[in-house]
Amino acid sequence: MTPISSEDQILSVIDAHFPAEHPRLLLGRGDDCCVLAADGPLAISTDLFLEEAHFRRAYFSPRDIGWKGLAVNISDLAAAGAKPVGFSLGLALPPDADLELVDGLFAGMAELARPFNLSLTGGDLSRAEKLHLCVTIFGDARPEAMLGRGRARPGDSVFLIGQVGLARVGLAVLESMGRAGMERYPSACRAHLRPVPRVREGLMLAELMEARRARIGLMDVSDGLVRDLPRLLGRFGADLAFPTPHPECLAWAEERKGGGLSAGEICCLGGEDYGLVGTCEPSLIGDIVSSIPDCTVLGTVTGEGSGILWDGRPAASSGFDHFSKA
Amino acid sequence: MTPISSEDQILSVIDAHFPAEHPRLLLGRGDDCCVLAADGPLAISTDLFLEEAHFRRAYFSPRDIGWKGLAVNISDLAAAGAKPVGFSLGLALPPDADLELVDGLFAGMAELARPFNLSLTGGDLSRAEKLHLCVTIFGDARPEAMLGRGRARPGDSVFLIGQVGLARVGLAVLESMGRAGMERYPSACRAHLRPVPRVREGLMLAELMEARRARIGLMDVSDGLVRDLPRLLGRFGADLAFPTPHPECLAWAEERKGGGLSAGEICCLGGEDYGLVGTCEPSLIGDIVSSIPDCTVLGTVTGEGSGILWDGRPAASSGFDHFSKA
Repeated sequence: MTPISSEDQILSVIDAHFPAEHPRLLLGRGDDCCVLAADGPLAISTDLFLEEAHFRRAYFSPRDIGWKGLAVNISDLAAAGAKPVGFSLGLALPPDADLELVDGLFAGMAELARPFNLSLTGGDLSRAEKLHLCVTIFGDARPEAMLGRGRARPGDSVFLIGQVGLARVGLAVLESMGRAGMERYPSACRAHLRPVPRVREGLMLAELMEARRARIGLMDVSDGLVRDLPRLLGRFGADLAFPTPHPECLAWAEERKGGGLSAGEICCLGGEDYGLVGTCEPSLIGDIVSSIPDCTVLGTVTGEGSGILWDGRPAASSGFDHFSKA
Repeated sequence: MTPISSEDQILSVIDAHFPAEHPRLLLGRGDDCCVLAADGPLAISTDLFLEEAHFRRAYFSPRDIGWKGLAVNISDLAAAGAKPVGFSLGLALPPDADLELVDGLFAGMAELARPFNLSLTGGDLSRAEKLHLCVTIFGDARPEAMLGRGRARPGDSVFLIGQVGLARVGLAVLESMGRAGMERYPSACRAHLRPVPRVREGLMLAELMEARRARIGLMDVSDGLVRDLPRLLGRFGADLAFPTPHPECLAWAEERKGGGLSAGEICCLGGEDYGLVGTCEPSLIGDIVSSIPDCTVLGTVTGEGSGILWDGRPAASSGFDHFSKA
């Protein structure tokens, strides 16, 4: 381990992973602020990624932390159908942080950022008791095709892109077995450690919305379907089927039999998979399902106040709230 | 004290202080991201404002914390000659946080934000051990008049807008006497608790730069002149006079006589006043000083590698670095 003795050391690590120049940066890192070229609306999202609250260093490698800290933000842009351009980072390092930790963090961020040619535009560094990341991401939004919540209307189709529940199983596996659990539950652990934001799918849906002048609502599943769906549907209800569980969700439910949740419940309650859940006019659903390989139809939006039914029954439990007592 | 029992409670407090709608917001708070209208370059800055590292609740009221957490960011835009438009907030609350704390935080932010019609565009909430704020601010930059660092040339004038050293005295007073110190050192304590970002002056300088097609360099003084000036001057040196100390700096130096720094040293070393320091072509300095009331000339930029001299002597000490061992 190489101890950190100055801020400049950290800045050198950052420079090694993220070039200071970028086609969109008129004024780059190193000044009081960056200046980003923009000739249309920008989608902006901020997420905290905090040690103990959101991740544990016991089983998150520094690269995993960097990856996921950025991924959860990119996912917010995906849900708006926006194209990621750059991000800024507030990074607080704990007393035991060494240069290897810092290098791993930025390596993980760079690995995810590279395919999007995402710029690190600036940020701030400090000491703290725990490792804390706060990422703010900017992307180009299409003014005619901003996806979002609260667009559902009765009769619309409800669709899901990607797995749900897998990251929750990954969390349970990693909490109980540490990284050793990756051997038996590789997909679940990977879903928890390295979620893949669905940028391409968000952009496809935005293009479709623009081309067809159609109504599409979209959000990413960060807190679990049970908690996130009411935000997507607003005052309307829905008649839904349980999503098809991943084999590792089935295996985990089986292993915990009697004591735990069913695989279907895990899918509805589980958060942090960062798939996308959406609603669309019935005429669009065929195109959406056929053009996005892991898109499935969950069901149909129903009338005001009719609630959300899963296989005909209301969901039992609520989702995750940092501030609830449960 | 009213305990916090859900995230929705906090969101209601936020809504009470910051309207969800804003002329520049195409998609507002409550979605995965906001969408901000932009038809030109955006200046962006991120700053951490962390309990213990940057402030203590022993003498910062919740309103002070909200004010300063936002002010340090607005100041970065001021230094770029940009006009603040909106900000996002990552807020981590400690276990003892109650609704009154949260209300005070947002009241302080709103008090500062109102004259700028600054929008709170979104953010993220979490639990943590300490009170942590991470603000990212966006503003409209003028492509032809972006101020910044490293523009100085030999012969240019060096100017200072606002006080330096006062916030450092305020910190020392508050650390040793708590809020009781505000009675004898009101300006110093206020400078530390409620710095006023120099947005108007930054915009004036940007306009001047554009109108005269002139060379102006600018930054805000956050870490103290001794540390910040080399960043402004790049490879060049400067021949400077000590800034005129505020009477409370003189009084504090006097009170600590023998044991402490001189008032002049306090001015050069003290950070967190968030004044502006700049360089300009000699032909501009007259206009700048006459149009900005508390602007003073510090001296002249000198040749490469000639170092920075204060009243003919090099400064003794370095500034503040969260990661240095000193």
